[in-house]
Amino acid sequence: MAEFEISHGAKIIDGKAIADKIKNELKEKISDYVAQGNRAPRLTAILVGTDPASQTYVKNKMLAAKTVGIISNTIDLPDTTSQEEILQYIRKLNEDTTVDGILVQLPVPDHIDEHTICNAIAPSKDVDGFNEINVGRLALDMKSIVPATPLGVYELLRRTEIPTFGKNVVVIGRSKNVGMPTAMLLHTDGRHVSKGMDATVTICHRNTPPEQLKKHCQNADIIITAVGKPGLVRRDMVKAGACVIDIGITRIPGAEPGKTKLVGDVDFEEVRKVAGHITPVPGGVGPMTVAMLMSNTFMVAQTLAKTKLSTCFASD
Amino acid sequence: MAEFEISHGAKIIDGKAIADKIKNELKEKISDYVAQGNRAPRLTAILVGTDPASQTYVKNKMLAAKTVGIISNTIDLPDTTSQEEILQYIRKLNEDTTVDGILVQLPVPDHIDEHTICNAIAPSKDVDGFNEINVGRLALDMKSIVPATPLGVYELLRRTEIPTFGKNVVVIGRSKNVGMPTAMLLHTDGRHVSKGMDATVTICHRNTPPEQLKKHCQNADIIITAVGKPGLVRRDMVKAGACVIDIGITRIPGAEPGKTKLVGDVDFEEVRKVAGHITPVPGGVGPMTVAMLMSNTFMVAQTLAKTKLSTCFASD
Repeated sequence: MAEFEISHGAKIIDGKAIADKIKNELKEKISDYVAQGNRAPRLTAILVGTDPASQTYVKNKMLAAKTVGIISNTIDLPDTTSQEEILQYIRKLNEDTTVDGILVQLPVPDHIDEHTICNAIAPSKDVDGFNEINVGRLALDMKSIVPATPLGVYELLRRTEIPTFGKNVVVIGRSKNVGMPTAMLLHTDGRHVSKGMDATVTICHRNTPPEQLKKHCQNADIIITAVGKPGLVRRDMVKAGACVIDIGITRIPGAEPGKTKLVGDVDFEEVRKVAGHITPVPGGVGPMTVAMLMSNTFMVAQTLAKTKLSTCFASD
Repeated sequence: MAEFEISHGAKIIDGKAIADKIKNELKEKISDYVAQGNRAPRLTAILVGTDPASQTYVKNKMLAAKTVGIISNTIDLPDTTSQEEILQYIRKLNEDTTVDGILVQLPVPDHIDEHTICNAIAPSKDVDGFNEINVGRLALDMKSIVPATPLGVYELLRRTEIPTFGKNVVVIGRSKNVGMPTAMLLHTDGRHVSKGMDATVTICHRNTPPEQLKKHCQNADIIITAVGKPGLVRRDMVKAGACVIDIGITRIPGAEPGKTKLVGDVDFEEVRKVAGHITPVPGGVGPMTVAMLMSNTFMVAQTLAKTKLSTCFASD
């Protein structure tokens, strides 16, 4: 079981355990896929610069790829690389039929336009789902590649069997890679291709007055926060039994001098006393993001293989 | 003035007057634009089948175009036209440098896939803003072509000086051409290219339980409804002084036998007693839709002219 009961309150949703389960499932599926004569899926990451957090993220993605049977490599570029040089790498990878998934680790240095980079990646290989075409398809409830973090939240809710149909959800944060697509998945129609979750969704953000944020949260069956502001969601804002999903990650000074620790947006120790379900930080949504990126890579590989196959038949 | 005081309650937002003002402004701008030596903007509509409502909509668009100085024409096709034939018309129009805006009147007959048609229109000529690339750009707060009805709501709010920053907005209805893009414009960041309205937005829909819809509406500073269900928004759901925007249009039997009339989603006579501002149906959002389509067509024409100009310079 991916969750366990705490005597004095919320069930803790063990994101790491669920992510491990998803990776195990993927490993098996990819193994079968390769046994059927298919080439192993391949993921290429482009990392520009030497930001330590970005380096760690990319390293974790490469490790996860290895675990599930995805071949991966990272193109490491100095932070002086020009936008045009990066675009050239992307174009080459777009055309490379041995590459399935492509991602550029964000943020990119200031002299590079993020939109231009994301939109240069072929929509069919865009495993981060940041290309405007994938974003548009998501907004239209069409088949698309959904960004890994919102998809991780979706899977956490689904696998923990948290009801969403007709429920009140508050999404705090309107970022384009987390808040917005999460709100999209949650409010849309479950009968459409994208299998939305049919919730009533309230999008709160920096300009929502604190007393209104509290009011909306108090009426919520599910609170999803993705802000990066420790202590934002307090116990008095959470309805008894509500599900609290914490996507925020902030590094703060630890108990020992010189040490740091990661915390979310939720006052975990207090909120767990009233919530029905809660995700910890770390070990909640974080591991899910990596697992869903792998899931996206395998999906992309299968679609590309099918496309090539139909092209072969067409030219026969 | 585009609005006038009613002694016993809400100011009625006169959408027709505001739309006329916008069309007059456009007429002047287009006249100047042509006087500067530019070709007059041109809009082509494709109408498949003989649905009377669609025919009326297209006729109104063509009339508005004429009023503001946009050259327009309609390609009338029988409802037996195949998807491939329609795509051929679209491709021709995409390549025709004398055509600026292209629209296909929706709905199309059942044997035609709406997404395929909308995505075939060149994003730069897509005056309805239904192409997945324009939808994606809107969702990413990038420069895009915004569908005319949400853009009409945006302009109504802006020109009536209804505050939105940090306010609670309820959008009822999650359709892809009205509810979703309206929620997008309302909740996003005013500092971004798309100039969002920074409101806290709650998206309600068919699966929102009635008592929750009421609760959300009672807390709203602005209610925007786009459902097509007469009487959905009642007086007891509206906070005193709130702004109520009614996008719903339903044809119901009129007072005289055999006659019909158009009504919105709002119980207008009752809600106007408590609301601060209210749009009537007809004469509210409806006329704005046509005006904003003209505005989109002129914007598209200017952008295309600039692109051609820069292409000319580049090849010099």
